Amino acid sequence: MKIAIVNGPNLNLIGTREPSIYGNQSFNEYLEQLSNDSKAEIIFFQSNIEGEIIDYLQKTSVDGFIINAGGYSHTSVAIRDCIASIIPPVVEVHISNISARESFRHESLLTPVCSGCIFGFGLESYRLAINFFENKNIN
Amino acid sequence: MKIAIVNGPNLNLIGTREPSIYGNQSFNEYLEQLSNDSKAEIIFFQSNIEGEIIDYLQKTSVDGFIINAGGYSHTSVAIRDCIASIIPPVVEVHISNISARESFRHESLLTPVCSGCIFGFGLESYRLAINFFENKNIN
Amino acid sequence: MKIAIVNGPNLNLIGTREPSIYGNQSFNEYLEQLSNDSKAEIIFFQSNIEGEIIDYLQKTSVDGFIINAGGYSHTSVAIRDCIASIIPPVVEVHISNISARESFRHESLLTPVCSGCIFGFGLESYRLAINFFENKNIN
Amino acid sequence: MKIAIVNGPNLNLIGTREPSIYGNQSFNEYLEQLSNDSKAEIIFFQSNIEGEIIDYLQKTSVDGFIINAGGYSHTSVAIRDCIASIIPPVVEVHISNISARESFRHESLLTPVCSGCIFGFGLESYRLAINFFENKNIN
Amino acid sequence: MKIAIVNGPNLNLIGTREPSIYGNQSFNEYLEQLSNDSKAEIIFFQSNIEGEIIDYLQKTSVDGFIINAGGYSHTSVAIRDCIASIIPPVVEVHISNISARESFRHESLLTPVCSGCIFGFGLESYRLAINFFENKNIN
Amino acid sequence: MKIAIVNGPNLNLIGTREPSIYGNQSFNEYLEQLSNDSKAEIIFFQSNIEGEIIDYLQKTSVDGFIINAGGYSHTSVAIRDCIASIIPPVVEVHISNISARESFRHESLLTPVCSGCIFGFGLESYRLAINFFENKNIN
Amino acid sequence: MKIAIVNGPNLNLIGTREPSIYGNQSFNEYLEQLSNDSKAEIIFFQSNIEGEIIDYLQKTSVDGFIINAGGYSHTSVAIRDCIASIIPPVVEVHISNISARESFRHESLLTPVCSGCIFGFGLESYRLAINFFENKNIN
Amino acid sequence: MKIAIVNGPNLNLIGTREPSIYGNQSFNEYLEQLSNDSKAEIIFFQSNIEGEIIDYLQKTSVDGFIINAGGYSHTSVAIRDCIASIIPPVVEVHISNISARESFRHESLLTPVCSGCIFGFGLESYRLAINFFENKNIN
Amino acid sequence: MKIAIVNGPNLNLIGTREPSIYGNQSFNEYLEQLSNDSKAEIIFFQSNIEGEIIDYLQKTSVDGFIINAGGYSHTSVAIRDCIASIIPPVVEVHISNISARESFRHESLLTPVCSGCIFGFGLESYRLAINFFENKNIN
Amino acid sequence: MKIAIVNGPNLNLIGTREPSIYGNQSFNEYLEQLSNDSKAEIIFFQSNIEGEIIDYLQKTSVDGFIINAGGYSHTSVAIRDCIASIIPPVVEVHISNISARESFRHESLLTPVCSGCIFGFGLESYRLAINFFENKNIN
Amino acid sequence: MKIAIVNGPNLNLIGTREPSIYGNQSFNEYLEQLSNDSKAEIIFFQSNIEGEIIDYLQKTSVDGFIINAGGYSHTSVAIRDCIASIIPPVVEVHISNISARESFRHESLLTPVCSGCIFGFGLESYRLAINFFENKNIN
Amino acid sequence: MKIAIVNGPNLNLIGTREPSIYGNQSFNEYLEQLSNDSKAEIIFFQSNIEGEIIDYLQKTSVDGFIINAGGYSHTSVAIRDCIASIIPPVVEVHISNISARESFRHESLLTPVCSGCIFGFGLESYRLAINFFENKNIN
Repeated sequence: MKIAIVNGPNLNLIGTREPSIYGNQSFNEYLEQLSNDSKAEIIFFQSNIEGEIIDYLQKTSVDGFIINAGGYSHTSVAIRDCIASIIPPVVEVHISNISARESFRHESLLTPVCSGCIFGFGLESYRLAINFFENKNIN
Repeated sequence: MKIAIVNGPNLNLIGTREPSIYGNQSFNEYLEQLSNDSKAEIIFFQSNIEGEIIDYLQKTSVDGFIINAGGYSHTSVAIRDCIASIIPPVVEVHISNISARESFRHESLLTPVCSGCIFGFGLESYRLAINFFENKNIN
Repeated sequence: MKIAIVNGPNLNLIGTREPSIYGNQSFNEYLEQLSNDSKAEIIFFQSNIEGEIIDYLQKTSVDGFIINAGGYSHTSVAIRDCIASIIPPVVEVHISNISARESFRHESLLTPVCSGCIFGFGLESYRLAINFFENKNIN
Repeated sequence: MKIAIVNGPNLNLIGTREPSIYGNQSFNEYLEQLSNDSKAEIIFFQSNIEGEIIDYLQKTSVDGFIINAGGYSHTSVAIRDCIASIIPPVVEVHISNISARESFRHESLLTPVCSGCIFGFGLESYRLAINFFENKNIN
Repeated sequence: MKIAIVNGPNLNLIGTREPSIYGNQSFNEYLEQLSNDSKAEIIFFQSNIEGEIIDYLQKTSVDGFIINAGGYSHTSVAIRDCIASIIPPVVEVHISNISARESFRHESLLTPVCSGCIFGFGLESYRLAINFFENKNIN
Repeated sequence: MKIAIVNGPNLNLIGTREPSIYGNQSFNEYLEQLSNDSKAEIIFFQSNIEGEIIDYLQKTSVDGFIINAGGYSHTSVAIRDCIASIIPPVVEVHISNISARESFRHESLLTPVCSGCIFGFGLESYRLAINFFENKNIN
Repeated sequence: MKIAIVNGPNLNLIGTREPSIYGNQSFNEYLEQLSNDSKAEIIFFQSNIEGEIIDYLQKTSVDGFIINAGGYSHTSVAIRDCIASIIPPVVEVHISNISARESFRHESLLTPVCSGCIFGFGLESYRLAINFFENKNIN
Repeated sequence: MKIAIVNGPNLNLIGTREPSIYGNQSFNEYLEQLSNDSKAEIIFFQSNIEGEIIDYLQKTSVDGFIINAGGYSHTSVAIRDCIASIIPPVVEVHISNISARESFRHESLLTPVCSGCIFGFGLESYRLAINFFENKNIN
Repeated sequence: MKIAIVNGPNLNLIGTREPSIYGNQSFNEYLEQLSNDSKAEIIFFQSNIEGEIIDYLQKTSVDGFIINAGGYSHTSVAIRDCIASIIPPVVEVHISNISARESFRHESLLTPVCSGCIFGFGLESYRLAINFFENKNIN
Repeated sequence: MKIAIVNGPNLNLIGTREPSIYGNQSFNEYLEQLSNDSKAEIIFFQSNIEGEIIDYLQKTSVDGFIINAGGYSHTSVAIRDCIASIIPPVVEVHISNISARESFRHESLLTPVCSGCIFGFGLESYRLAINFFENKNIN
Repeated sequence: MKIAIVNGPNLNLIGTREPSIYGNQSFNEYLEQLSNDSKAEIIFFQSNIEGEIIDYLQKTSVDGFIINAGGYSHTSVAIRDCIASIIPPVVEVHISNISARESFRHESLLTPVCSGCIFGFGLESYRLAINFFENKNIN
Repeated sequence: MKIAIVNGPNLNLIGTREPSIYGNQSFNEYLEQLSNDSKAEIIFFQSNIEGEIIDYLQKTSVDGFIINAGGYSHTSVAIRDCIASIIPPVVEVHISNISARESFRHESLLTPVCSGCIFGFGLESYRLAINFFENKNIN
């Protein structure tokens, strides 16, 4: 099983950006740990450019995507349309509890076309998404 | 580690109620399986009465709650206040993808005071919540 | 044919409560008269507790329900979910013309999942709901 | 007792129009049956023209009106003002469950000035309205 | 100078309709009095049919229109477009104080394309509109 | 008969202020002309201060007020409360057609507690208000 | 192939009405030209009366309708219901770019039940609608 | 004079719950003090269950109620209807300044049917409500 | 202890203004009675001018203010900013139950920056505010 | 004459993406056919990246653009500003009937600055846009 | 060159009022410094009374105004109308970042009629406004 | 001191684009003039691509940014998150008075996370932003 994690804008700054919200562990360190703990092969992509995320989702062949589209979650009809158009299941994650922040972060345009959504658990949100694909694989 | 799963109104009908949305496995069967697979001790409570859910949350001593408050998720300031008042962490789960259903189900009043939220994975949403507590326990 | 009438909060006060809106005949007197006039067997339940109404709807075996959920009509996603989950048809009634009262009474959350809705005819709204089941039985 | 049924725009197409919503019995057949079953004298008027409906309501001398104003229910302040101005009681009916359709059909401008409202029972909504007048006549 | 008064739906009932709002003098009596008091020639048209009002406005050659479109004031983009398309100035009048009634009567679609608006003075609103044309004529 | 005209903020600038909207005749010139033409005694007050307008309305003994509260029309609950509290009838006027301008000018807080409202006729709006009091006096 | 063009209120004034928006060619001249250029037989109907448009749509047997309902586009649930009830495909057209005008013109109630919509091209919007039917005929 | 204090959901936790908002004195201690200071007899009821609060209000015979319905204040049409139906006057209190908290706490559904409302004074809000009944008794 | 009562616009009319809402006792009579009954020294200020109320609040040295800002309660960001800027605690009062009146009176801009709010008790609202300061003084 | 067709995000997937909405012919096949049938020279550009579409519109020299901006239609103020800034006329097209889909697709930010808009005709929407430029060329 | 700085309500408290938002330098000290640094002559006016600000703007002869209307920025149509009526250019300033505070501070009614707006730079917002007039003078 | 000016989409067209709004001086000419007049070193970046602006803000080491994000100001949560994540202060500028244009331009998502905002002064808005950094440097 092969899983792609797709991170959107500013998520390359995790560990340094607003640590009171996002914690101070860098995403690369976390990713390495996650890969070691996981039975699935994990590949990773980050871009600040909306359309490059669409390109990647269209062209990458995997068993599932885990997407944290950052700020684009709340504004991108284009990424939503892309997720609705591709075949692999997509799980949406967010690091922070978006329901407890500014009101424009409460609703994600992507959620209705994803398999499911996990948020508020810090970086562990990603691990739970991987757990979902692994549990599914077993059954 | 001891985890309490709290189910709100109509979730006693899972397996028979609207199977196109909620699937056709009964919750009891699923719970048994979940308990067997889990290292944590799992206890369970269901009620159709809003205030009984509050009573249970106030009086039960556990390491964490997993709550699916059903229809009360969208209307109960009282359960929200209760979650904000108690000490154990609470994870909110939903079986269906509530963002893809009627608009009055898009926002849960409980989410901002929960640790995190998991929805859309069918009954597996509960297993992921347990995974969260188990992963946390390890680290 | 067996029909259950389910009355929600404060409807036990009919006859004394705000008589300019609800009239001054007590519900029990009216019910007796209705039972005598009707070919169907009529049973009756009233509760001020939202979850008890759900319990009753889930557990009572009848050919049809007539529900006047009072104040819960406008706030209860939980009763709505219950009606959507059970098999017997449910007819919603209101004594007063809810469209001509405060704006928060204009929309009932229950109506979209009921067979139909009858309101504004005073206590006669109940008789018309029974007429519906009786007419249906004939055809 | 003499009752006038007033049907608004497109209701002349019942039986052929969108049968999944409105059924496939023509209104004329139904009306004949209804007249035979009823003790009251029933007269009937249909028009696609808003102002002709107003003319009819103003000029027709009956003991009660049953109105299904179709699309005008949701847009016509003029018919509303007419109903508020005339003396005979008016009962509003709809064939379909308007609360379960598009949001612009949820609220009827006419309801607050009618005696009551009955909807969702298919063509039987009309019979229940007649039942209302007949029951009233008896008491 | 020739002025046309155009009355919309239900205004033929003035004097009998809701006398607490509209008074109990019939419009015809009032009109006669108004004609006698006025230097301008006054002609009069009433229709319950929206499109007939448009036909009349398009085809009638006068120095000014006084329109009370009744319920159509709040719903008719078509009459608004007509007023914007014709050459004679149009003054809008209402008998009652529409700002003090139901909120759907607060805004008239016609006002922005009329020369001015006069309301709340009972039938005297018409006389003031005629005063406007007469005063204008003098200066 | 004694009538007080009350002008609110910036109406002292009429004739120089935004002439495309308000014309280029000064209010004092117009007032003189109006007084000469009128049978009633006309007194006049202008203030840019909301509370001074209230003081004046409370303390001035007249048969009627004509008020153009300018920008306070859309924001002053205090002037509204004052009009509702005093005995002489108050007619609201505006020079421009407020319905055809910015949306925050469409609704005046004062209108529901005034006898009536006249707007859009340029300075002639004031004359029509005086006509109202004069006509009333005759009848 | 036979196509009916249906024009709503005030469209009989094209060429004289608000030429800065609608141009100054009369519709009849344009129609003649259009008929000459077209392979399909084109028939034409105009009415200012909402219900007569419904009557025409219900009773006319053609291969397709082209409708410009003018002001009724934004207010008529009744015409919408009619279009949804009839069999021939309906194409909606507007002369002006309705998205660039007042906000109440941005949404047409008819569009969701039409085959498609063409607007902003002046009178050429009609020709494009005919092109649609002709292209379709070829393929 | 006999006064009943009715506390809604989670108010049993006062003293331990969110002390930055609700203070750290337990309600029982406060109540004892209040009873000692007061000339009226004070009885007390707390429940987390909406319908039990309704039952209590309907069945308890007192000279006045003081209600703090907690989270139900903002969601319960049923408690509102109950207060409107019973005879003793009801004073609403809140411990915190609900206008300075989340927007869903700004409006209480109960206030319009209560005699008055007191909030923001900490537990002293209850004492002021008792002062109201005592002052009233004297005059 | 020294307390200042600050009354806003039109409250000088109490006793004569809309007696069905505000009662018919004049404020001066009531104030005298209140001063006699109270242990605190009470001073009093009334103005119809928003900025004079701000001047007074900024310059008066007291242990507490009791403010009834009348119509300015619902519109004055400036008085709100003033209350937030000064040191003595401010208690807001209203004579009527503002939640049961027009919707623009439901929310006061001042409440979030006041210590607390008391309304609906008629003139007794002022006494309760004084009780608050006296009770506080004792403890 | 030279026309550029500009397709936005995910339109490269046409033919495979959601065929129930977009059909199953690939855009390239359709484009070839269109070029053969057309007298104008047609060039084509597709990008998933919002800013690349802006770059293309700014730099490409043509007689007209046909744009289907996909998901960016509903979110891109930047593309709107670009269209308003360039000289060649732009026609907006959509394959599906966007008025009959999710509400966030009902309004396109681009439409008010385009020459016109054509949608709902499947891929034939493009051909009609080309017809517009060709017809224009003839006249 | 002569510039008038106009400060609205509560800005006389700067330096003592809410120092976490407005800093702790008094405005007079700052003004002295600003006058020394500036080539333009600077005059200054502060009032808590809305109408006095209007009087000042109407009567003061300068080359430009710098206005910080404080709380009136968000509520005063009257000051807006005044700015639109006078000849000298007006620059709006705010000390704090009003976009980052309560939502009722996000929009200023004055901005659309000012030359430009500067906010968020603390007291330095005033200096930048003076820079604007000085830069302009040079070019 | 080193300052980066960052211009978003379509700002490369300044001087040719909509000159009635943006003037007809090209940005490059203006920039040269600005650099000559300024003590700070000024660097410059323009892109039509949202994500490239984010890349630039993340990677450029300066003492301050001046950003005019054009159309992205009103839609980009991603640029907002970026500004909140980086260390150098960011000043937002706009050439036109965005409060006086279409309503979707009234609110910028970026403002709450910027140091301050300057708009409406034409290209001089940039100079004022530089003045801010220079003034700051001096003090």
